[in-house]
Amino acid sequence: MSRIEVIPVPGIPEVKQGADLGVLILEALRENSLSLEEGDVVVVKQKVVSKSEGQLVRLSEVVPTPAAKKLAKREGKDAKLVEVILREAVRVVRAGHGVIITETRHGFVCANSGVDQSNVGKGLVALLPKDPDASARRIRGELEAASGKRVAVIVTDTFGRPWRIGQTDVAIGCSGIAPLVPYAGKKDKFGYHLRVTEPAVVDEIAGAAELAIGKLNGIPAALIRGVSYTRGEKKLKSIIMPPSRDLFR
Amino acid sequence: MSRIEVIPVPGIPEVKQGADLGVLILEALRENSLSLEEGDVVVVKQKVVSKSEGQLVRLSEVVPTPAAKKLAKREGKDAKLVEVILREAVRVVRAGHGVIITETRHGFVCANSGVDQSNVGKGLVALLPKDPDASARRIRGELEAASGKRVAVIVTDTFGRPWRIGQTDVAIGCSGIAPLVPYAGKKDKFGYHLRVTEPAVVDEIAGAAELAIGKLNGIPAALIRGVSYTRGEKKLKSIIMPPSRDLFR
Repeated sequence: MSRIEVIPVPGIPEVKQGADLGVLILEALRENSLSLEEGDVVVVKQKVVSKSEGQLVRLSEVVPTPAAKKLAKREGKDAKLVEVILREAVRVVRAGHGVIITETRHGFVCANSGVDQSNVGKGLVALLPKDPDASARRIRGELEAASGKRVAVIVTDTFGRPWRIGQTDVAIGCSGIAPLVPYAGKKDKFGYHLRVTEPAVVDEIAGAAELAIGKLNGIPAALIRGVSYTRGEKKLKSIIMPPSRDLFR
Repeated sequence: MSRIEVIPVPGIPEVKQGADLGVLILEALRENSLSLEEGDVVVVKQKVVSKSEGQLVRLSEVVPTPAAKKLAKREGKDAKLVEVILREAVRVVRAGHGVIITETRHGFVCANSGVDQSNVGKGLVALLPKDPDASARRIRGELEAASGKRVAVIVTDTFGRPWRIGQTDVAIGCSGIAPLVPYAGKKDKFGYHLRVTEPAVVDEIAGAAELAIGKLNGIPAALIRGVSYTRGEKKLKSIIMPPSRDLFR
């Protein structure tokens, strides 16, 4: 049990390829009279991570395949955009009602392979980072080197979910924080052994950051202070459901 | 953009049927030198709501049908428990690997119809509230009447999700807060029209509360302060995906 603060970090300038996000975040914190504390979790939105890694595609330079053209026509989408979506996917999970749900090369199941036209500028689309866990580790390294504090970093994106309208922000990469809290084997106050409970704290932190940041003001980072989490090097990748256990393949 | 605080509310006694949860929460707040402020969101865990509404079943009194016995055997579960799960379900969505995913009478797709053995006492299981939106409205009424402040209430439960290991807390009922923030039609800073973005803030708040509360210390409520949300009477029920739009039926 702990009181938690979720603090948006405004003032980060438009991110260019090669930008050192850790440095930009620390500068913005300083401008807001904030500094990192031991154990802070820094949430960074996927879009700026992708920009810093050059994961942008100019749609005018994309030549769609016949398969992309066909799917685009069926779902009422731009064929060049669908081509990019298919290139980022290992399979189309579902398509219908103008929505294309794919499994990305990372193993994420999400709309449009995470390819996104918002907040990137005219004619461009942003892809997901190639290895979001590595992105988180790199940003964490930059933050820890410059601040001398041990922190965790979560890279987040906005995903829909089946059976419910609306989206929530979830973790797509993490570093310095165990993605799950393992309660299995622990007892409740009546002595009952909890069996399967493993809260995905990285996803809950991702959502909490979104609450504070919103979508329209171009703020790409938040500081979460007071969460009691397990330090560790487990990757976000480790909580992707393996096909052998996946009831929804 | 806003700084958010997530404050656990300890000190609520074991909840009995007929308990006035609003009063219990206000008393616990007072003991913690806290009081409600205009616009606060109060998160209440499903378990205490179910207890206050008498939604408990004694397993020794349940007689399983042959169908429940068969499914229980296949998934390695207790037949009486499976009987209760099936009574709460309109259909079994998936079963395998010892997991039973159902659609509940409310339309939620979740493990075990939300029927849960933890934190209820030996031999008992808790069902979901019959109408969690009504539960939230009732608790909100109690809180507003006693405090004179306008607040929102979210009733939450812990759900798994496809394709990812681990669970997050999500909203199963709400009152006084619009479940989604509609960004559709709004422009990003480059002038791009956002099209489908509708963050499910009630679910993000549910997860944020879980981060502060945890699972083992018997704290059934949290206060979330500083979230900018839209007041309104839309129910959580309104964000359940209608079958006609559901790609995962």
